[in-house]
Amino acid sequence: MKAVRLHEYHRQPVVEEVPEPKAEGPFDVVVKLGGAGVCRTDLHIVEGQWAEKSGVTLPYTIGHENAGWVRETGSAVSNVEPGDTVILHPTPTCGLCHACRAGNDMHCEFGSFPGIDSDGGMAEYLLTSARACIKLDPATRPEDVAALADAGITAYHAVRKAVPQLYPGTVCVVNGAGGLGHIGIQSLRALTAATVVVVDRNAEALELAAELGADHTVLADGKQVDAVLDLTGGHGAEVVLDFVAEQGAQQDAFAMTRRDGSHFVIGYGGMLEIPAIDLIATERNVIGNLVGTYNDLAELMVLAQAGKVTLHTRKYPLDGALDALADLDAGRVRGRAILTP
Amino acid sequence: MKAVRLHEYHRQPVVEEVPEPKAEGPFDVVVKLGGAGVCRTDLHIVEGQWAEKSGVTLPYTIGHENAGWVRETGSAVSNVEPGDTVILHPTPTCGLCHACRAGNDMHCEFGSFPGIDSDGGMAEYLLTSARACIKLDPATRPEDVAALADAGITAYHAVRKAVPQLYPGTVCVVNGAGGLGHIGIQSLRALTAATVVVVDRNAEALELAAELGADHTVLADGKQVDAVLDLTGGHGAEVVLDFVAEQGAQQDAFAMTRRDGSHFVIGYGGMLEIPAIDLIATERNVIGNLVGTYNDLAELMVLAQAGKVTLHTRKYPLDGALDALADLDAGRVRGRAILTP
Amino acid sequence: MKAVRLHEYHRQPVVEEVPEPKAEGPFDVVVKLGGAGVCRTDLHIVEGQWAEKSGVTLPYTIGHENAGWVRETGSAVSNVEPGDTVILHPTPTCGLCHACRAGNDMHCEFGSFPGIDSDGGMAEYLLTSARACIKLDPATRPEDVAALADAGITAYHAVRKAVPQLYPGTVCVVNGAGGLGHIGIQSLRALTAATVVVVDRNAEALELAAELGADHTVLADGKQVDAVLDLTGGHGAEVVLDFVAEQGAQQDAFAMTRRDGSHFVIGYGGMLEIPAIDLIATERNVIGNLVGTYNDLAELMVLAQAGKVTLHTRKYPLDGALDALADLDAGRVRGRAILTP
Amino acid sequence: MKAVRLHEYHRQPVVEEVPEPKAEGPFDVVVKLGGAGVCRTDLHIVEGQWAEKSGVTLPYTIGHENAGWVRETGSAVSNVEPGDTVILHPTPTCGLCHACRAGNDMHCEFGSFPGIDSDGGMAEYLLTSARACIKLDPATRPEDVAALADAGITAYHAVRKAVPQLYPGTVCVVNGAGGLGHIGIQSLRALTAATVVVVDRNAEALELAAELGADHTVLADGKQVDAVLDLTGGHGAEVVLDFVAEQGAQQDAFAMTRRDGSHFVIGYGGMLEIPAIDLIATERNVIGNLVGTYNDLAELMVLAQAGKVTLHTRKYPLDGALDALADLDAGRVRGRAILTP
Repeated sequence: MKAVRLHEYHRQPVVEEVPEPKAEGPFDVVVKLGGAGVCRTDLHIVEGQWAEKSGVTLPYTIGHENAGWVRETGSAVSNVEPGDTVILHPTPTCGLCHACRAGNDMHCEFGSFPGIDSDGGMAEYLLTSARACIKLDPATRPEDVAALADAGITAYHAVRKAVPQLYPGTVCVVNGAGGLGHIGIQSLRALTAATVVVVDRNAEALELAAELGADHTVLADGKQVDAVLDLTGGHGAEVVLDFVAEQGAQQDAFAMTRRDGSHFVIGYGGMLEIPAIDLIATERNVIGNLVGTYNDLAELMVLAQAGKVTLHTRKYPLDGALDALADLDAGRVRGRAILTP
Repeated sequence: MKAVRLHEYHRQPVVEEVPEPKAEGPFDVVVKLGGAGVCRTDLHIVEGQWAEKSGVTLPYTIGHENAGWVRETGSAVSNVEPGDTVILHPTPTCGLCHACRAGNDMHCEFGSFPGIDSDGGMAEYLLTSARACIKLDPATRPEDVAALADAGITAYHAVRKAVPQLYPGTVCVVNGAGGLGHIGIQSLRALTAATVVVVDRNAEALELAAELGADHTVLADGKQVDAVLDLTGGHGAEVVLDFVAEQGAQQDAFAMTRRDGSHFVIGYGGMLEIPAIDLIATERNVIGNLVGTYNDLAELMVLAQAGKVTLHTRKYPLDGALDALADLDAGRVRGRAILTP
Repeated sequence: MKAVRLHEYHRQPVVEEVPEPKAEGPFDVVVKLGGAGVCRTDLHIVEGQWAEKSGVTLPYTIGHENAGWVRETGSAVSNVEPGDTVILHPTPTCGLCHACRAGNDMHCEFGSFPGIDSDGGMAEYLLTSARACIKLDPATRPEDVAALADAGITAYHAVRKAVPQLYPGTVCVVNGAGGLGHIGIQSLRALTAATVVVVDRNAEALELAAELGADHTVLADGKQVDAVLDLTGGHGAEVVLDFVAEQGAQQDAFAMTRRDGSHFVIGYGGMLEIPAIDLIATERNVIGNLVGTYNDLAELMVLAQAGKVTLHTRKYPLDGALDALADLDAGRVRGRAILTP
Repeated sequence: MKAVRLHEYHRQPVVEEVPEPKAEGPFDVVVKLGGAGVCRTDLHIVEGQWAEKSGVTLPYTIGHENAGWVRETGSAVSNVEPGDTVILHPTPTCGLCHACRAGNDMHCEFGSFPGIDSDGGMAEYLLTSARACIKLDPATRPEDVAALADAGITAYHAVRKAVPQLYPGTVCVVNGAGGLGHIGIQSLRALTAATVVVVDRNAEALELAAELGADHTVLADGKQVDAVLDLTGGHGAEVVLDFVAEQGAQQDAFAMTRRDGSHFVIGYGGMLEIPAIDLIATERNVIGNLVGTYNDLAELMVLAQAGKVTLHTRKYPLDGALDALADLDAGRVRGRAILTP
């Protein structure tokens, strides 16, 4: 089968032939890909930013945002069968460690992250586990929902964690109106009655944000912190969802956070520099976020199938993977690029 | 009456005569001080570290950790009467803003912080409000409990917030075994079954920590991060209570925090520098902490009156305030220095 | 001034002249009524159902759901001033007890409930306290929002408590589509993405429920439990908000509750009879609900002023109070009857 | 092998020979029993009280409280291996349904309850699943801890759920000082600083309760409700853990519950009869409880291995099962009867 393989850091991946995976273990599931999302993390992987953290051996197949149809199942798989339409939780998990038993899939002691630390989904077939499969309505087209498997779950998970702080009368800033930000705005609309303020450098992105339900939009033109303070009576927002967290946006995001509020870090790339006195004098929090739980993704699929969360996508054939990566890098993708193998 | 007054930043306060306060408003309470704690924050105030944040006009009376006896009450005070023994919540509050109505006293929009932004308790009498008074058993000696009014509530509040993460089998690091750390250890013992690991530069402080119930002690000799990782199977602790947060201790504290864990910042003085990728790849949190609620202090007094939380104190007369400050600065105070006006 | 006074249980109240109240204490506020809601509880009061629990001395003025304009304030009132438009939290509180300090207004140890245990708002003027006043946009008409002061806060409080159980994919049954039910449906729409199933005996009420956003409606024709089980795959609903809780509806509501789910009792009049084995074998909860906190009402007013919660009302002059009570008793009021003094 | 089998309701089980179980599925685990607890539920099973709820086909082997050593494992078992000492979570679960993915093992859609709805552990060997096994320190004797597998987890789970309501200054009533009550008292001591009041009909049981850390004991002589109200200033307790819930104890327990408090139903057999007005006028809750999660049991084993929770046991050989059941029924067992096959 064809697969998009990274052979060397700082060089482009290549589309090449590799053997098809088989379901050998009792919980194995082989999925025929219907959609594989292209994510900024793929660029960061090529740049070597994940080399040490993932410990993956090159070459390998990238692609960590996947949906498709079950092709083959191991002997003990009971939740899906061949032909089922599925979206895949990004981290197949052991199901037995303390984190798994608490429902914290992303903290599984023995979990993998296909596309980051093992072969991923920019290919015709992917080997995963029964525990990663969420069965969908057969009418669902995998290419339409694949982006929810990583971008979606990550934005939704952060919103879900923030819900208790976002009662009526509060303000949530969405810092960055790209693919994750769009899911974030719609999830906020679905789960809270908070006022949503969206900040982005791109005026067009702000227009789309307004269509998706943002109450206010703020152009990140250097005065965005003041603008948010003005919108909030000088206080800042109870919650700031920082989908950027690089190039200084992380410092702005903290500065936009109200006393007793929380700065949720979701993007990455930058360095947070906060005097301890600023944390304690206002009792603010900085909250890390990492994808989400299996149930988070299942909940998000409920919202998606009810039409409450949608994502603009641009489709590319598997052979066009390098074009998709280049377009993403150049800022030419609105919403999410999806490979349709 | 006599009071310890700061006339100029970077110069020592002076003990001098000032007029006695009167209860003029309906909710005013005048308290005769029985104990006023001397805190590292008093040194920071003299150094000017709070000049901008507090906006206080010099000269003023310092002392933000107070207990004593009610002397006079305003016309509408119903919860205490002259003669009552009281400990004072550090921030008299309006009782009407959103934060007050939610029980978040330390975030009152109109609160004051006597001893930081207005006249405090290193004096014979203090003007406060009914909302700051917690009535105690008349047998209680104010000098024995005064330190709980700020050091105590601050440590207890952080522990209280951490309880949901500290189920049996988890580890809590107490970074810094000074006055706050001692309350922290005892509060952890009273409220959780977590394993308590105490880190300090001072071997004697660690001995006292062990007496107070620490399961393990670690000397901060430069290898303390490795030592904590060794004690936790390489994972780090679910919760790190950082009572230091300066001179690099804040970075160590974050490094001791486990995946999915939380670094509670309670001390201050240092700068936190954390790459966003380190926050998100492990989903760790950095939690600010600021004193605590009125009910936090009331709960702590329950523990104190049951003998579950005690604090070693060293008493000084009001005239000895400068000695107390000098002893604290030189590291000569074990537990807490208390002025007994 | 005129007031609606109850002189004897089991006899109708009378409209008669009484002296106007004065703001004598420092926190007193006298409000000129603009709207006073007429509630099923007023009927229960007349029937003597609250005689023992309230301990009120007859005669007294009923009316516990009030909004209007501030007429006079005590010397220490800082949050409102004469002329302000206000809605009144139903239970003026002491602000000093443990419950008040935790934000649990309805559990204040020294609280009153004007209209139930002291003079209420079916009158031209009402004496209340600063702590009960929520200041509104001056454009708000008190008669339009008065019903939120008790019916609204009660429904909203229950929904607010249920939010953590109502993640996407869950079902909430609203048992009873009267005034409280309408607020409940709209609050669920604003705060959750749960599927809302409304049960009522009245087909017209169900039509209105559907307009307000119910996903499914079920006629309470004796087969309502089966209908809810059918709609939920045989499982029942994660949350049942029981706004009726009399004449057997309370048993149905429990029967509609899913394993690991919660039956919120909001209405009253009936007797709950549940074998302990049914509670434990399925780990279900029965949750009592009592009005709500000051902040609950403030949040609800945010939703109301944003147009997310509205209530159909029927206006009566103060002199028409007995007509309003009669209409309510006869089931002739759609939404809420409001006296406009 | 020998097993204790129930052939008919209302007749005693018999000890007889049955074939040994095999590990045939990939996640199967066969355990050699070291201890099997004898529980009041076994008496209720014989009485037919669970016949309909469990749907089990007679004859079958009872015993739902088990610990021992792994004998044989299926091909995909990774968390234990032959020879390991294990305690067994009472409900082997699917690991794939929504409840399992949230960590709510006791609500698994496909879970079984060996000893209740399938063959249990009053036998030489038991077939279970990898998901039920908690690996213990090899020095642990299964007969010493078996009672924690059901009595223990059930009491601990209820305490764990009550912790947020049991801050310092609150009171918890333990209604019933039998096996579960003893674990409850010790768990309360380990996890909270609440005042513990124990109620029982048996003066000896109260003495043991006091040894285990009860602050107050109350003889259930008909005046127990008044006694608890007296101990709590007339208010009742924030939490009542009702380990009896039959013969009127369930009504007493509710009457002992404070305004805004919760009555946790853990025992069963009785009928709860509560007027809705009593629930809403005081906003009390009735909370169902069912065994606990896998992680609950793992946490309890941490407490047990640290010596913080112990249980008095009386050992019987497997052949003595009928004696054990008879002794339990006659009230002759202090703590827990354990079969040691």
